[in-house]
Amino acid sequence: MTTDELYGQIQKKKSMLCVGLDTDINKFPEGVTDIFDFNKAIIDATSPYCVAYKPNLAFYECYGLEGMRALDKTVDYIRTHYPEQFIISDAKRGDIGNTAKMYAKTFFETMDFDAVTISPYMGSETVTPFLEYKNKYAIVVALSSNSSSADFQFALQGGKPLYQVVMEKMMEISTPENMMFVVGATKADKLAEIRKFCPDNFFLVPGVGAQGGSAEEVIAHGANAKGGLLINSSRGVLYASHDKDFAEAAARVALSTAHLD
Amino acid sequence: MTTDELYGQIQKKKSMLCVGLDTDINKFPEGVTDIFDFNKAIIDATSPYCVAYKPNLAFYECYGLEGMRALDKTVDYIRTHYPEQFIISDAKRGDIGNTAKMYAKTFFETMDFDAVTISPYMGSETVTPFLEYKNKYAIVVALSSNSSSADFQFALQGGKPLYQVVMEKMMEISTPENMMFVVGATKADKLAEIRKFCPDNFFLVPGVGAQGGSAEEVIAHGANAKGGLLINSSRGVLYASHDKDFAEAAARVALSTAHLD
Repeated sequence: MTTDELYGQIQKKKSMLCVGLDTDINKFPEGVTDIFDFNKAIIDATSPYCVAYKPNLAFYECYGLEGMRALDKTVDYIRTHYPEQFIISDAKRGDIGNTAKMYAKTFFETMDFDAVTISPYMGSETVTPFLEYKNKYAIVVALSSNSSSADFQFALQGGKPLYQVVMEKMMEISTPENMMFVVGATKADKLAEIRKFCPDNFFLVPGVGAQGGSAEEVIAHGANAKGGLLINSSRGVLYASHDKDFAEAAARVALSTAHLD
Repeated sequence: MTTDELYGQIQKKKSMLCVGLDTDINKFPEGVTDIFDFNKAIIDATSPYCVAYKPNLAFYECYGLEGMRALDKTVDYIRTHYPEQFIISDAKRGDIGNTAKMYAKTFFETMDFDAVTISPYMGSETVTPFLEYKNKYAIVVALSSNSSSADFQFALQGGKPLYQVVMEKMMEISTPENMMFVVGATKADKLAEIRKFCPDNFFLVPGVGAQGGSAEEVIAHGANAKGGLLINSSRGVLYASHDKDFAEAAARVALSTAHLD
């Protein structure tokens, strides 16, 4: 998908919402037992109100081959029924060049994702193989939303904090047509500052909802002229209700999160 | 496995070698077509000369469910036939706490690994769930062996380079009984320096062989009183020969790499 197509979807649906499919069988509503069945119900209910889905790989890998089969079915279902959706593999991969090449193949050829999240610790080489695919995206973690994000992401290099050094290095080797960044919503005050040195790339913004960030603040501080944000909510949407009405409840939360009216 | 058991194996076999199972079907010798069959031949030939195996997850994930099935079979084969071996999942995972918990479950419960490599960019929270398993290990990437490792790993915090900050933070929350570190062999000059502030933890040392590092130098600079090293070679062992004698050739390279006589 091109960024223009993604911008088009955001304008059409008046939504910057990405629904995180962190599907946890321990939180299933009464009567639901299957990962794919749960995802399908959530997707059917929320697709009118979001522009992206983001399965979190840990939640599938932990069920072994059965989990991976549910992941494949989920991606295939979205591609077939909602081809306008942008699909992100939240995998936080990051390894040396020859291994990164195999991960790029995994997510862009073996599986059918539009984008993959990448942890940048091992440097630019961990990202370059992902950039060789047209209309696909590396989404590099810059400033994350979790409680220990400040452990290392503010180390200094050339007088700049590491998250900025990471983004500037990645911007050197990429374009906004193949690179996005993870910037956490729990750091909304940082978003405006980050927009100044990175005006054109999409930001994937986790941390809204269960983690405490506000979508309104994220849009106020982080949007660029065209929008340029994918605001993720996972637990807040998926587990909006633990009863039979879970899909309707998910749709209601989706409609009211990162909506642009 | 306890570290004492691992030290015992190193002394018994007079080897610090970890064989990296970066199994690439494009490099298979004539006549071999199956990932598990190749791994089995390599394992049977090299097990007397090494103390650990390290499947690189990218090389299995890129073949989808079939690849993951080959990985499961490989781990199961090592457990059954060579129960003295230490098995590392080279997965470089690293995510927020509730996701890290699912990854720990994946590798220590769903699968049967002794240790998992972890990328520390998102902070201590990415590691803590792995530390809750007895006789299992988080292996945190500190200083890697690849060409772009210097992009970010030397940023400064409190006057110290990031790799040291990472290690000291991780040492605060762990013990040598649940934490190891990745320290690249291509930085052998750094190893002695790192041993000073981290005397007791095992180091997993990649970069020997195809990446240019020397096992002898690694042992000279990086060993502690008991040893404390797992020296990895992947391509150098697996593809020592592309002919029918590939397993014997792998055994010869294994015997001469990181051997302690």
